[in-house]
Amino acid sequence: MNKAILSSDEIPRQWYNLAADLPTPMQPPLGPDGNPVSPEMLAPIFPMALIEQEVSPKQWIDIPEGILDILLKWRPTSLHRAFAFEKELGTPARIYYKNESLSPPGSHKPNTAVAQAWYNKQAGTKRLTTETGAGQWGSALAFACAQLGLECKVYMVRISFEQKPYRKIMMKAWGADCIASPSTETKAGRDILDKSPDTPGSLGIAISEAVEAAVTDESGSTKYSLGSVLNHVMLHQTIIGLETKKQLALFDEKTPDVVIGCAGGGSNFAGLAFPFVHDKINGADIEIIPTEPASCPSLTQGPFVYDLGDASGMTPLLPMYSLGHGFVPPPIHAGGLRYHGMAPLVSAAAVEGLVTPRAIHQLECFEAAVTFARTEGIIVAPETSHAVAGVVQEAKRAKEEGKEKVIVFNLSGHGLMDLKGYEAYFAGELQDYSLPKEIIEENLKEIADFPKPAVAKTGRW
Amino acid sequence: MNKAILSSDEIPRQWYNLAADLPTPMQPPLGPDGNPVSPEMLAPIFPMALIEQEVSPKQWIDIPEGILDILLKWRPTSLHRAFAFEKELGTPARIYYKNESLSPPGSHKPNTAVAQAWYNKQAGTKRLTTETGAGQWGSALAFACAQLGLECKVYMVRISFEQKPYRKIMMKAWGADCIASPSTETKAGRDILDKSPDTPGSLGIAISEAVEAAVTDESGSTKYSLGSVLNHVMLHQTIIGLETKKQLALFDEKTPDVVIGCAGGGSNFAGLAFPFVHDKINGADIEIIPTEPASCPSLTQGPFVYDLGDASGMTPLLPMYSLGHGFVPPPIHAGGLRYHGMAPLVSAAAVEGLVTPRAIHQLECFEAAVTFARTEGIIVAPETSHAVAGVVQEAKRAKEEGKEKVIVFNLSGHGLMDLKGYEAYFAGELQDYSLPKEIIEENLKEIADFPKPAVAKTGRW
Repeated sequence: MNKAILSSDEIPRQWYNLAADLPTPMQPPLGPDGNPVSPEMLAPIFPMALIEQEVSPKQWIDIPEGILDILLKWRPTSLHRAFAFEKELGTPARIYYKNESLSPPGSHKPNTAVAQAWYNKQAGTKRLTTETGAGQWGSALAFACAQLGLECKVYMVRISFEQKPYRKIMMKAWGADCIASPSTETKAGRDILDKSPDTPGSLGIAISEAVEAAVTDESGSTKYSLGSVLNHVMLHQTIIGLETKKQLALFDEKTPDVVIGCAGGGSNFAGLAFPFVHDKINGADIEIIPTEPASCPSLTQGPFVYDLGDASGMTPLLPMYSLGHGFVPPPIHAGGLRYHGMAPLVSAAAVEGLVTPRAIHQLECFEAAVTFARTEGIIVAPETSHAVAGVVQEAKRAKEEGKEKVIVFNLSGHGLMDLKGYEAYFAGELQDYSLPKEIIEENLKEIADFPKPAVAKTGRW
Repeated sequence: MNKAILSSDEIPRQWYNLAADLPTPMQPPLGPDGNPVSPEMLAPIFPMALIEQEVSPKQWIDIPEGILDILLKWRPTSLHRAFAFEKELGTPARIYYKNESLSPPGSHKPNTAVAQAWYNKQAGTKRLTTETGAGQWGSALAFACAQLGLECKVYMVRISFEQKPYRKIMMKAWGADCIASPSTETKAGRDILDKSPDTPGSLGIAISEAVEAAVTDESGSTKYSLGSVLNHVMLHQTIIGLETKKQLALFDEKTPDVVIGCAGGGSNFAGLAFPFVHDKINGADIEIIPTEPASCPSLTQGPFVYDLGDASGMTPLLPMYSLGHGFVPPPIHAGGLRYHGMAPLVSAAAVEGLVTPRAIHQLECFEAAVTFARTEGIIVAPETSHAVAGVVQEAKRAKEEGKEKVIVFNLSGHGLMDLKGYEAYFAGELQDYSLPKEIIEENLKEIADFPKPAVAKTGRW
C-alpha cells in the first residue's frame, strides 16, 4: 500500500486548538498603549466568530457543515508512503507525506481560506481584502470567495505581481481582483508611492493597504483576511494533522518519531504538527521540527519578543519569535517563507520546548526537492522543499543510527506555479545566504522599547 | 456526497480493448507500399509487448502489477458531482466529472506514459524519445521515465518551447532533456533548418525527429513513445472509464445519458468513453460525444481516409478522420487538440455511429471554463474546456427538455501551466475561427492517391 485514503465520512469534524492545551497560557496581543487588545477592537477587521476562535479556551471546536461541504471537494487528502524516496536515500526510516497539493489552488491555504470566507459570509460580509506575496494565499482566498459568492480584492507585492503574472490570472479565473501593491487606491499605498515611486513593495505594505481598504469601507460589509500567523488560522489547518493520525493508523503505524513542516508564518507546520504536539504534551516521545530558511531564520535566530505583525503598525503587538518588523528578507525563491516573525502559537510551542526549529539553506532544499520529484513524482513548492530537506537530514540520521524511525512531513503545496525557482537552481544562479547577526541586532533596536513578554519556563528568552 | 472515491484495492486490473469489440473489424495500418504493416516492421520503434497490444484480439488485457504500483500513487482518481455548476446552469441534469488533473503532471497522460515506460523497461530499453506540442505529453513521459529509471528525450515544437519555458523546467525536474524542434541533432531537423532557419516548428517535424533519434540509435536501446492516436494508448486510458463506472454506482447512478470528452488525438476521450461504448454496443442508450475545436475539426469536417500520422511520412498510413497531414492547425490555445487526424479507434467508433462528434468554438469553451472554475473551483486546461462547453450545451438541452439526465465528462487536466490562454481570453484577444472548406479540400488533394478504407456501414464515407 503506497497511500492511505479516508472516505468523506471520515473527515475530522472538529479542529484542535493548541492555545487551550499549552502548559503555560498564551500571552495576549497588545495594543499601541501596551494593554491587551479586546475582541471588540478587532471587530472592524474580522467577524466575531473568528475573533472568538482567536481567543477561545476550548480545546476542540466544531467544524460547521457548510465548511465541510466545501472542504470535501478535495479533502480528506491522501497520506503517502514514500517508498521510492526511502530507497534512494538508503534509509531504514519509513517516510510518509501528507499531500496538501491536491487542493484546486495547489496548497494547504484553502483549509483556512474556506473557513474564513464561510464565517464572513455568515456575518453578512460582502467582500474580503487581503495581501499576498508569492501568490499562494491570494489564490486560495480567491478560490474560497468564489465558492461562497464573496468579492475578493488582493494586494500583491509589486515585485511578485510583475514576476509572476500567472498568479493574478489564476485569481481572475476565480473572479478576484488582484492589483500591485503599493497601489494608488489606499492612503498607505499613495504615501509610499510619493516617497518611493519605484519601490518593489513588501508584504508589510500590502497588509497595510488591505487592512485600510477593509476598515475604511463605510458600508461595513468589507472585512480583512489573513492567511497565516493568527490563532484561528492555525486552528483551521489542524485538519491536516488530524487526518494524518487516522491515516497513519491505516498503515499500522503508531506515534511517529519525527514530524516535519516548513515554517514561514507557521500555518502549514501548525496544521500537521499541532495534533502531534497534543500527544507530546501528554507524554508521547516525538521530535517535531519546523524548518525555516537560513536566510530568514526567525525561530532559530530571532528572540521571543512582542513585535508588530506587519511592517507599518496596522496590527497589534504579538508575542512571537521575530527578526524585527523592519526586516526585509532577502529574495529567496520560497516567497511564502519570507516573513519577519512566526505565528504566536508556533512561537509559544517553541518557547515551551515542544517543537525544535531548524534552519536550512536553499541549495540543500532544492537538491532534496529534485531527488523527491524524481522518486515520488511530485514537484514541490520551494517552501515545501524546506520540509523535504529536513526529512533528508532525519532519514540520514536514522541510517547512521540504524533506527527504523517513522518520519511524517507536510507536502504543503506543489511547485507548478513556481518553476522559476527550479530554473534558477538548475542554471546555478542560486546562492546560499546566512543572515548576519549584525543585521538582526540592528533591526531589533527598533523594537527595544516595546513591552516584553514574560520569560517562559523553558525558552531561550 | 460530492465525490466518490475508490480504495487502492478497487483499481481496475484489466484494460478494455474496444478494437476487439467493434461490430466491424478495424482496418489495418498500411505501409508505403499499400500493404498492411506487420508487427515486425514496428519492432525498431516499439517494444513487442506494446505492438502486441496494438493488434490484440483480446477484449480485456491484464494490467501488470508493476504498472499498477505506480498508477496507485494518484489513482483511483475521484469522481465528483458538480452541484454548484448544476445550480449555476439551472439544469435538472446531474453532472459528474472524472478528475484526471490529480496526477503529478496534472493530466490523464501519465496513464499511458507509465504503461509505455514500464513495458519498455521490461524489454531492456534504456532511453525513450518523444515529441510534445503544448507540453502535457512530454511532461507525462518525463515523469514516467523518472519513475522507471529511463532516460527521456523530448523534442518540443519550437514556438511552444519558447512561449512556455516552464514546461521544460518541469521535464528537467524529472530528469528529462527537452530541446526545441527542429534541432540540429537529427537529419530531419537539420534539413528543415537549412531550408527554413526561422521555422516555428510543428508536431509533424518533432515526431520525425523523435522517431529518427530512436531508430538510428545503433545500440538498439532507444525506443520511441507516442502519447495519443495509437490503439495501445487508447487501451491504457480506459482505466479512466472503468473507474468511473464503479464510482457512478456509488452515487446510485446507472447508465449515464451523456458521456463527453474533448478530442485532439483522442486519448482522454477514449479513456472515459470506450467502456461506455462497450455498453452501447450491448444495447445501452447513451449519447457519447467527442468535442473538438471548430478550428481543427477532424471528426466533424474531415473525411474518413487513410492518412499519415505525421507531417513527413515517418509513420504508416492510418485509417482515420483527417484534415490531411499537411494541415497546420491555427494557433488556438488548446495546443493539445491541434492535430490533423483522429485516433483510428475513435474514428472507427464514429464511422460505426457509436459516438457523435461535435465542434465548438474557443470563446464558448473559455466562457464555460470560467463558469466551471468559479463554481467547482478547478481551473481546467484549455483542451478540457471543450468538454466543459459540451456539458453546458447538454445541460441546457436537458433544461429545455425538462429531463433529469445524467451527464459525465472527463476533466482531463488542470490549466495551471496554460494560464496564458485565460489571460488572452480575459484581455479580449481571442477570436473564433471556422476552418474554410477550401483549405480542407486543398489539403486533402495531397492524399488523393492514398489507398481508401472500405466504406463503413453507417459512416458518412
